[in-house]
Amino acid sequence: MKLEEIAEIAGGNLIGKNETEIIGVAALEVAGQGEISFVEKTDFAAQAGQTKASCLFVPETFDAELPCSFIRVKNPKLAFAKIAEVLHPPKKQPPEIHQSAIIAEDAKIGRDVFIGAFVCVGESSEIGDGTLIRAGAKIGDNVKIGVNCTIDPNVFIEDNCSIGDNVILHSGVIIGTDGFGFVRDKDRYVKFPQIGTVVIENDVEIGANSCVDRGALGETRIGKGTKIDNLVQIAHNVSIGKRVIIASQTGISGSTVIEDDCIIGGQVGFGDHARVLSGAVIGSKAGVLPGKIVREGVWWGIPVQPLDEYKRQNAHVKSLPRMREEMKSLKKQIADLTNRLLENS
Amino acid sequence: MKLEEIAEIAGGNLIGKNETEIIGVAALEVAGQGEISFVEKTDFAAQAGQTKASCLFVPETFDAELPCSFIRVKNPKLAFAKIAEVLHPPKKQPPEIHQSAIIAEDAKIGRDVFIGAFVCVGESSEIGDGTLIRAGAKIGDNVKIGVNCTIDPNVFIEDNCSIGDNVILHSGVIIGTDGFGFVRDKDRYVKFPQIGTVVIENDVEIGANSCVDRGALGETRIGKGTKIDNLVQIAHNVSIGKRVIIASQTGISGSTVIEDDCIIGGQVGFGDHARVLSGAVIGSKAGVLPGKIVREGVWWGIPVQPLDEYKRQNAHVKSLPRMREEMKSLKKQIADLTNRLLENS
Amino acid sequence: MKLEEIAEIAGGNLIGKNETEIIGVAALEVAGQGEISFVEKTDFAAQAGQTKASCLFVPETFDAELPCSFIRVKNPKLAFAKIAEVLHPPKKQPPEIHQSAIIAEDAKIGRDVFIGAFVCVGESSEIGDGTLIRAGAKIGDNVKIGVNCTIDPNVFIEDNCSIGDNVILHSGVIIGTDGFGFVRDKDRYVKFPQIGTVVIENDVEIGANSCVDRGALGETRIGKGTKIDNLVQIAHNVSIGKRVIIASQTGISGSTVIEDDCIIGGQVGFGDHARVLSGAVIGSKAGVLPGKIVREGVWWGIPVQPLDEYKRQNAHVKSLPRMREEMKSLKKQIADLTNRLLENS
Repeated sequence: MKLEEIAEIAGGNLIGKNETEIIGVAALEVAGQGEISFVEKTDFAAQAGQTKASCLFVPETFDAELPCSFIRVKNPKLAFAKIAEVLHPPKKQPPEIHQSAIIAEDAKIGRDVFIGAFVCVGESSEIGDGTLIRAGAKIGDNVKIGVNCTIDPNVFIEDNCSIGDNVILHSGVIIGTDGFGFVRDKDRYVKFPQIGTVVIENDVEIGANSCVDRGALGETRIGKGTKIDNLVQIAHNVSIGKRVIIASQTGISGSTVIEDDCIIGGQVGFGDHARVLSGAVIGSKAGVLPGKIVREGVWWGIPVQPLDEYKRQNAHVKSLPRMREEMKSLKKQIADLTNRLLENS
Repeated sequence: MKLEEIAEIAGGNLIGKNETEIIGVAALEVAGQGEISFVEKTDFAAQAGQTKASCLFVPETFDAELPCSFIRVKNPKLAFAKIAEVLHPPKKQPPEIHQSAIIAEDAKIGRDVFIGAFVCVGESSEIGDGTLIRAGAKIGDNVKIGVNCTIDPNVFIEDNCSIGDNVILHSGVIIGTDGFGFVRDKDRYVKFPQIGTVVIENDVEIGANSCVDRGALGETRIGKGTKIDNLVQIAHNVSIGKRVIIASQTGISGSTVIEDDCIIGGQVGFGDHARVLSGAVIGSKAGVLPGKIVREGVWWGIPVQPLDEYKRQNAHVKSLPRMREEMKSLKKQIADLTNRLLENS
Repeated sequence: MKLEEIAEIAGGNLIGKNETEIIGVAALEVAGQGEISFVEKTDFAAQAGQTKASCLFVPETFDAELPCSFIRVKNPKLAFAKIAEVLHPPKKQPPEIHQSAIIAEDAKIGRDVFIGAFVCVGESSEIGDGTLIRAGAKIGDNVKIGVNCTIDPNVFIEDNCSIGDNVILHSGVIIGTDGFGFVRDKDRYVKFPQIGTVVIENDVEIGANSCVDRGALGETRIGKGTKIDNLVQIAHNVSIGKRVIIASQTGISGSTVIEDDCIIGGQVGFGDHARVLSGAVIGSKAGVLPGKIVREGVWWGIPVQPLDEYKRQNAHVKSLPRMREEMKSLKKQIADLTNRLLENS
């Protein structure tokens, strides 16, 4: 890929030789001949000055000298990610339906589909054009999977779930198993019906070994463009909006709603029936009480508080030893005063 | 199913037309013709008044007007769950042993068993009547599985483990891998023997991607009727009683005992050798120290405290800013007093 | 195994009959004829006096009377673990390549390898001598696996990852899926390239359903002899040293470094780019902020503090109710003093 072409895609300003051929992306420290890297902030000027890369994306305000060509862009990391998408596309298996796969007779398999070894596709299920179902994945009955999805090894999708286009489900993801709902009856628990479904919209990515339970009566939904990390738990009837980011090991209890464009850290826990309003940011390890409404802004702690309050409270806790010392001093002063008053009277 | 029949099973009092045919359950907002729903509390009377369901379970004290038949019962949610069990039984695969399954010659397979594609069943293992082993599940050697169990896709059960009757293991569950025990020897860790087993009693349900480690020397046991959510970790030699509820992402360290009828929230952590006495309730994200004994009652916090104490302590922490203001005011008053005393003397 | 031989391996001092044949290890309470157990501390003398074991490892200072032979050693638990390794070696499948396995033509399979049913091994991959790849495991392209490894059922190893010798990956482990990195672009997230790799060094053990993401641009590395429990998350570009212990459900964010010989509890969370220096111990449920440097010593809390400070702070919080009482009392004393002063003047 020529630098001129790269500059055009990135919407940036190329300074330097434009005939250089770029064949890959790499980190600043290790990038070499034929590779492009990026400088996120102008602070990294010194490090950038040492680079052996053939080109760097740099911030628009960057003006240190560089030993290579560079492209000034608004957001160097974004430009880098976009060019990486072009230079390092995901490996495309040539279309194939492995002879060991067990595919129901009435399943509809699109064009240019890859179905790996030991895959099962159940009755009435549909696999969209260009989708990869990799080895060992199990697709239940009446499952719809859109176009250009990647379903990684050993994923399981239970009956009646629906997956949009361009969805990536990493290995070990489990979609549509029963939610966790029981009603106590004297000496046993009766299962509350878990007969709903899961809808995963377009452009969603879900990390390894994460679980999305089916709705009890309605649906569990994950909105367009949402990205979920590994080992995340999403319970029955949860509704997650568009472009939400959820980091690893977070758990979301039943019927909780997370609106569009929220960012959720790792190991966060949500009680049931909570609602996180659009644009909220919740720090790692936070806890959201059942039914809580979390407004826009940054939140942290168990239970969650606005970040500023949380920090102020922590500072107060930290200063408790000093407060205790002051209290002792006040006691002593009062005792002295009392004595003096006695002497005076 | 006729309403009269439903009322009888639910042990309730039918008011309205009894010839209506019910074909399914649904949530109050969406239930329609031929469907039954429920009203959990009398507060929902307004919503219930709008229902299009053919029948509702309502609390015994419910007396608002309804546009449909209704059945007065003690616990509407329980009645609903019980009727759902009848109207929406789990899909029963017709008995079949898929030709791709690899079953050891000396394995004993009961009657009416379903064994899916790409399943392995090891030497000397036994599968009880009516049990489903779904696609891709791997059953080790000398494993006993009782009757009417559902072992979901890609479950793994290691050698010598024992599973009771009517057990449901959701997809990705792993039973009987080595516990986490090592002894430090100069420059390496030596594995402490993990040669025990796992016993899962009747009517247990375990959620997707949860793990139950085998005992180090003895057994890890999960009692009758206990229900465990997704992504839960149960370490070696843990003993869980009967009818215990454990929510998602909770982790229980080695040799800890949880007695009958406890309820454990999500993301709770238990140190090793703790003991939770029968009837205790532990809130989400709580932490139980190693060796701690947790008595009956409700507990929360890290480390756990009785809920009331925990709330009181949190209130004190919240009031620290005010306390600091008061302290300042006291200081000032004392300074004033001291000055006045000086003036006086 | 003769007791003399055992004493020699354990480097201990045998007291009692040395011709006894030992066939297994067992816990102190249940060990019987032909079995060896251990007494960890001299406190357990009473219990040891009741044993039916044929022999016990005891501490060097142990001098209570015993009804059986015993071997004085420096570390009885370690001696026990070492002898258990000999008496209870992991089950060795005889070498076999199951006819259902799909192995790429150019894959290099060593001698004495076991490859189970429904396994896939991808192009250019290498499996070392004596390694077991158990049923349903999926090995990608260009993966190197060393000698004498155990890769358990339904493990997945993505393309280009490298696994050392004597590595154990328990069932459901996922190695080398994409890390979680995205860059926001107006109305969507662009994937930051996840084109690095994973290197797992010799003698590592990873627990069931744990995930190790591939490096974004570089590598994710787990050092020699490190032991990782179930359901642990290790993000892209994390570097873990040698002989590190990580308990269940801990999550480590991108680019964090954990140096040699650290011990990390369960459910701990690490922000990105943190560094834990060699020999640090971090208690369960702790939280380490992004970029934090954690020095040698014991740490606990969210965010982590030295254990002593954390305990002191907790004690202060616990004493808040008393502090509030004292404050009230001081207020009253000051009011009294003020009144008396008024009376006096």
